[in-house]
Order: sequence, then structure tokens, then C-alpha cells
Amino acid sequence: MTPFSPITRADCEALDRQDPLGTLRTQFSIPPGLIYLDGNSLGVLPTAAAARVAQVVQQEWGQGLIRSWNSAGWMALSQRVGDKIARLVGAAPGELVVADSTSVNLFKVLSAALHLAGVTRHEPAPGADGEAAHSPRRDVIVSERSNFPTDLYIAQSLAQQHGARLELLEAEEIPARLSGARGQDVAVLTLTHVNYRTGHMHDMAALTAQAHAAGALTVWDLAHSAGALPVDLNTAGADFAVGCGYKYLNGGPGAPAFVWAHRRHVSSAWQPLAGWIGHAAPFEFTPDYRPAPGITRYLCGTPPVLSLAALECGVDTVLAAEPLGGMAALRTKSLALTRLFAELVQARCAGHGLRLVSPTDDAQRGSQVCLARDEGAYAIVQALIERGVIGDFRAPDVLRFGFTPLYIGHAEVWDAVEHLRQVLDGGAWREARFQQRQQVT
Amino acid sequence: MTPFSPITRADCEALDRQDPLGTLRTQFSIPPGLIYLDGNSLGVLPTAAAARVAQVVQQEWGQGLIRSWNSAGWMALSQRVGDKIARLVGAAPGELVVADSTSVNLFKVLSAALHLAGVTRHEPAPGADGEAAHSPRRDVIVSERSNFPTDLYIAQSLAQQHGARLELLEAEEIPARLSGARGQDVAVLTLTHVNYRTGHMHDMAALTAQAHAAGALTVWDLAHSAGALPVDLNTAGADFAVGCGYKYLNGGPGAPAFVWAHRRHVSSAWQPLAGWIGHAAPFEFTPDYRPAPGITRYLCGTPPVLSLAALECGVDTVLAAEPLGGMAALRTKSLALTRLFAELVQARCAGHGLRLVSPTDDAQRGSQVCLARDEGAYAIVQALIERGVIGDFRAPDVLRFGFTPLYIGHAEVWDAVEHLRQVLDGGAWREARFQQRQQVT
Repeated sequence: MTPFSPITRADCEALDRQDPLGTLRTQFSIPPGLIYLDGNSLGVLPTAAAARVAQVVQQEWGQGLIRSWNSAGWMALSQRVGDKIARLVGAAPGELVVADSTSVNLFKVLSAALHLAGVTRHEPAPGADGEAAHSPRRDVIVSERSNFPTDLYIAQSLAQQHGARLELLEAEEIPARLSGARGQDVAVLTLTHVNYRTGHMHDMAALTAQAHAAGALTVWDLAHSAGALPVDLNTAGADFAVGCGYKYLNGGPGAPAFVWAHRRHVSSAWQPLAGWIGHAAPFEFTPDYRPAPGITRYLCGTPPVLSLAALECGVDTVLAAEPLGGMAALRTKSLALTRLFAELVQARCAGHGLRLVSPTDDAQRGSQVCLARDEGAYAIVQALIERGVIGDFRAPDVLRFGFTPLYIGHAEVWDAVEHLRQVLDGGAWREARFQQRQQVT
Repeated sequence: MTPFSPITRADCEALDRQDPLGTLRTQFSIPPGLIYLDGNSLGVLPTAAAARVAQVVQQEWGQGLIRSWNSAGWMALSQRVGDKIARLVGAAPGELVVADSTSVNLFKVLSAALHLAGVTRHEPAPGADGEAAHSPRRDVIVSERSNFPTDLYIAQSLAQQHGARLELLEAEEIPARLSGARGQDVAVLTLTHVNYRTGHMHDMAALTAQAHAAGALTVWDLAHSAGALPVDLNTAGADFAVGCGYKYLNGGPGAPAFVWAHRRHVSSAWQPLAGWIGHAAPFEFTPDYRPAPGITRYLCGTPPVLSLAALECGVDTVLAAEPLGGMAALRTKSLALTRLFAELVQARCAGHGLRLVSPTDDAQRGSQVCLARDEGAYAIVQALIERGVIGDFRAPDVLRFGFTPLYIGHAEVWDAVEHLRQVLDGGAWREARFQQRQQVT
């Protein structure tokens, strides 16, 4: 039936039987029969989260009430979960906290980086002789044209506010922009480590070194990296990072995000969201803001405890891989899954106008595979969803499939491609009901 | 036994039997025997919230997964809950959204107000001839010295960043500061409607009119007002407002906050937290930020759905009072409770060095009563908590008691004062274990 495929479903089943990480799937409640290739958009439910959230609601909130800030450890939760995430991204304990959304955290760290670069003013207005502060030599924020929109919007907002300039490049143009004389006006390089639309992964260490050589700082968005593949912020010498709680960390819809600053900056950089929870002594209620030492100053308001408790359960599902080889083992499996998917699509869906958008080079690929098609990408995704194969569409022409190695198996990959083949062969996606756009796609 | 008290416990029981709002308490799961006078810090658990959050976790997240952004209405939740809160604060549907924390929302609306006042720059840096923008005539943010710290910290941060000046006054000094020539340099008046430490309530309509007469804008923090007493933002002609979800709205620990802008400003004011959820078309993934029309532009990142769902249950408990007279009826009861508490303390705890901090004038009092004592305020609160009477301490010397009219009864007030009397008479609070400070007090 499938003469061009070198791999059979039986082969995939055998791979699953041999998978040393196969047991990790039992941590999750996944609807039977569903092939969920959208963990890069919203991770699945950790079974423990249901009981844990119920406990927080009924015991900690319902019975403990205000006392639970102390007795149930709510006050320490942002740091406790932060310390757990730190283990996944090469950060030390106390260097990373959970707070707010990725967008809000980007605003904080990009502000901090611009401050260190001398772009941002945060002292009382200087006199006329202080106006030099408004003409910084370094006034360019460099990013990637296809970076996730919220990253671009936040950078654009800060650039406009501080008289800086946001310059958007193709990924391959970035190294040259940082080198030699050309790099001398760059204040900050801000990138999403793994591109949301293509799955292309930047070389964090190399680009950080190039940025530093140019005298610029780096801000990394780990939305599609944390929990998906090894990240080593300290070894890379990165300056600032943020990341998302609801994708590969399985923290639940809209889970709080995280924020990290390198220890060389954490107590010197200024960030403008000076909320009371980031104060050195929030319960002294003093009128003057005195930032907490260390990363705690990146907290702002009161954290959403229910969502934060669910996030901890999600992070725990990733940490459960530590005795089995941790992120390195997850990465090996992730690459095997994405490679398998790309090869099967090539072998079994040939002639249907699909183009592989994601890199074939393992070193440049995140944990997703994106395909493009001139026509019908949205409808094909909808037709797959109706069959229980959940990926997503990214405008204008991308079919995106995420492979979370914690809970996706090889046979599922085989089945997903078989569904895709059937949708394409049968032309079912041309039916009107698949064309109708929903709000979130 | 209590010759100075004009009111007996039997009188209080009778008041409870006649209370037309008495049935509203059945909406909540309150630990038996607990007298919870801290709903102004964290509201109690609405019984419906446990089932609702379980549904969101198990069905919507667990089964629906990414599809729930459409099928379970997650995408519309910030606006749906916002519309419900709008009914409690005199705002129209579509004028108010739930988002982020109070601190983050303050940053947005204060930035917007400063922009409208000409203090904030948000266009690309003008040339030398544009430097006039940096020397605004109006460059003062006026607030109250005893405003909640996060409000002051956010204002301070923005003032420093934009070369404005934060001027802190006593409440009674504010009208004069706004009048005549003195008001001409005021850009924004930002106040918490009901003071967290004293329970003093500002006259929103009068101060807004005075600010407008001076050419200034107003930003109101409704943290201790929303759900506690009637607020009418549109009638007052206020400019911007924010508020808290976890106090009188019973939204759960760290529930998301809300933000409102008057319709005359909503589409003209610029706010810097330009996240993708506030974009006019988030799922078009365009590189340029185009703010959504109306209040939706005050959304930033992905909302924490679990916490947001719990908040909706909390808001519903307040809306349940609508057929019984709504906020006006709740206010009548709230004033009766706070008056009763103050009178009973005066009658039954005389001679113990307690001073009434909150206004005796109903028109100036929120839904709380604060007492001060030169010595032992913290320990007395701890001794009360051990007896199951939960209020809180606010540094340096305040015992704070909140009275949520949805679930507090008159007999509870009587019992709380009796416990206070016993703690003071017996001197139990002097025991060492009550002196030990915990992180959250």
C-alpha cells in the first residue's frame, strides 16, 4: 500500500515498545483515540493537576483562606515553581521566577536590557545638560521578522517609547548585522529560541557570543523550548529570558509565564513594572519602591494561585523524566519523532503540494514540524481535527504539528500521517465546513 | 455583663433573621465556626467555584484541549467576566475587561493617562525640534500618601521614567491642590477609592469634577470598592479605573484584575503593554501592532483561564444580590455591619487603648473598620485568628476588619467583638507566640 515508506506501522509500534520514556505518558489524562500534536500550543492535562487544583480550591482557599499565603506556601510558590523550571533551562535555583504572562515578562526584561544599554531613562528628568541621555549611540533592537507577534509588538512599543529603533531581519541576516562596525548601534538582540511558525531553532550560544562581541545584550523567548529541548542559559551566557507555562510545560490554559535574568544583571538592571510583590519587603507597606534582591524584583502583582498550582503539576511531568535521562533523553525522542513525521509525509503524501518548512538538520529543528501548502492549509488542519488529529494552522499557509516527547509515540506519528494522506487523497478538506474560520485556529 | 452596650447578641440574631440578604451566604463554603472578617484581603470560596474549576480542568482543558479556546468560550472569557463586573461599577457592557493583576493594569491606565496628558512619548523619537515634548507643562501625578503601596510604586516608576513628578498628599489636602492656579501642573490624580489602611472612602464624583476643572485626568483603583459598595464610574465621569478580583469579588487567591477606560478615551489613549491578545486581529499574526478597538486593547498576554473561571463564580455571587436590591442593598447592610462593629468596640472594649481609624460618617466609610493601638496590634490580630476571628494587621499599628455584606451577619459581628474584648481583658495577646511575625500578615 505504501511502497515509498521505508517504515511501517509495525516498526513504529516496536519503537514505542522499546521507548525508555514510554511510561511518562501515564502521567497525563489524554482523550482516548486523540492524536494530539498541539502540545506546543496547549499541553495536555497532567492527571495530578485535577486533584491538586481541587485541593487548592477546596482546602487551601476554602478552608485556609487568607492564612494559606503562609500555611500553604502560596507566597513562596512563584519562586518554588521557578526553581523547578530553572532545572530545565540551565539556570540556578533562585535565578528564575514564575510571573504574569510571557508578553508582560518580555516587557520587563526588554526594558531592563534597554536600561542597561543606556536607552531607557528611569531617573527623574535631568536638566537641559542631561539631554545627551536621549541620543544614545546604541538605539537598535534587532529581532527576526517572523518572530512571534507579541515579541515584536512589545519590542515595537518600547522602541517607540524610548526613541529606539526595531529592526527586523531574516534569521540568516542576523550574524552579519552583529559583526564589526555594523553591530555598534545594536542595543539588544531579542529572539524566540525556536520559531513558532517554522520550528527553526537559533544557536543560542553562538548568537549570544556574537551579540556580546558587538556590545549588545540578548533577550531569549523560550516559549517553544522550555520542556521541549535542552536549554542552557548560563552556559550560553544569555542575558535575559522569558518563557511560556502552557506549552511544553503542560501548565494549563493561560498558565503564568517565567522570567530569568543572568546574575550579572539581576540586581543592576531596572524594570518598570514595580509592583508590590517585587518589593524587598512587601508587607512593610512603605511608600517608596525598593526592589527585592535578585530575580524576585521581576514579580509584580499577586500571582494567580490556581493557575500557578496547575503549572507546578505540569512542570513536574517534565521533571519526571530526570531519572530517565532528562531533557537530553526527551530531545533524542523528540528528534526521532519529528524526523519520522517529516520522512513519512515525504514518502506517503508526495504529490499533494506540501512543502516542508521546518529544518531537516536536527541541530536547527525544535520539537515541531511545519508544512506549507499554497491552498487549503487551514481547511486541511480542520479536516484533520475532525478526525481526531490535532495540529494547528498558522497564517497564511502553515500546517503546524508539535511533538511533545513526554506523551507522543511513534505509532501516533504514523497514524497522523495516514490521516493526512487520506484527507489529501480524498479531498475531503475541500468541503465548505472546513473552510469556515474560527476565532482561534 | 455588658452594661455599656446598647445592643445584645439577641438583638443581632433578630437582625440576622430579618436580613433580606441573609440567604446569599448559602452561596459560599465557609469553615464552620470561623468569623471571617478578611474578605477585603481574600474573599471566601463560592461553592460553585469548586465544581466550575473542576469542569474547566477536567473537561475543557483535559478533553477539549486547544479546541476549548473556541468551543468553551475561553477567548471571550475576559470580556464576559468584564461585562459582569461592569454592572457592579457603573460601566457599560464592552467597557471593562479582566486582565493581568491590579499592578499591571495600573501601569497600563496610568501610562494611558500620562499619554493623554502629553507627558509620555510613544512616537519614534522626534528631531531636535520635537524636544518640546519632553518639557510638559503638566508633569505632576497627585496621589494620597497612604495609598496602597503598589499604586505608589507604579506611579513612581512611571514618573521617574517619563520625567514627571509624583506628589503625595494627605486626603484632605487634595481638593486645594487641584484648585485654581495650583492645579495647572497636575496631569493625573490617582487614588484608591477606599483606602486599604483606614477604610476612608473618597468622593469619586467630586474629586473627578475637581480634577477635570483643573484640566487633569483621574485614575481610580477600586480594589476595596468593587463588590463592596456602589460605584458609578460613568456617572462620576471618571477617566480610568482598575480593580481587584480576589477581595470583595470572591475570585480566589490572585484572581485576575480588571481595567476600565471611559469611552471618550478608550480608543485614543495609548498603553505600552502591547501584547498580542490586545491586537485587533491576534490570529492574523501580523508583525505590526494594531490595537483592538475599545477596551480589548488593554488585554496583553494569554489570560490564566483557571483563575479567570473561578473569578466568574465569585462575581456571580455578587450579581446574585441584584434581585434583592443589588449593590444599594449590600451597601445598606455593609454600613449597618461596620457601624455595629465600631459601636460595639466602643461600648465593650473601652479602656484598652484602641482608637477608631475609620470614619464614623457613613458617606466616608468603605466596608471595613480599622482600629489602631500603640502596642500589640499585630499580636492581638494573631490572638484573634487563633480564636477563629480572622482580620488582618497593617503595619505599623492597625487592626483591620472587613465586612463583606454577602456573607457576614450581625451576630458574627457581636461575637467578633466579644472575642476582641476577651483577648484584651485576658491579655493573652502578650504571649510570645503571638508576637512572631509571619511573612503575610
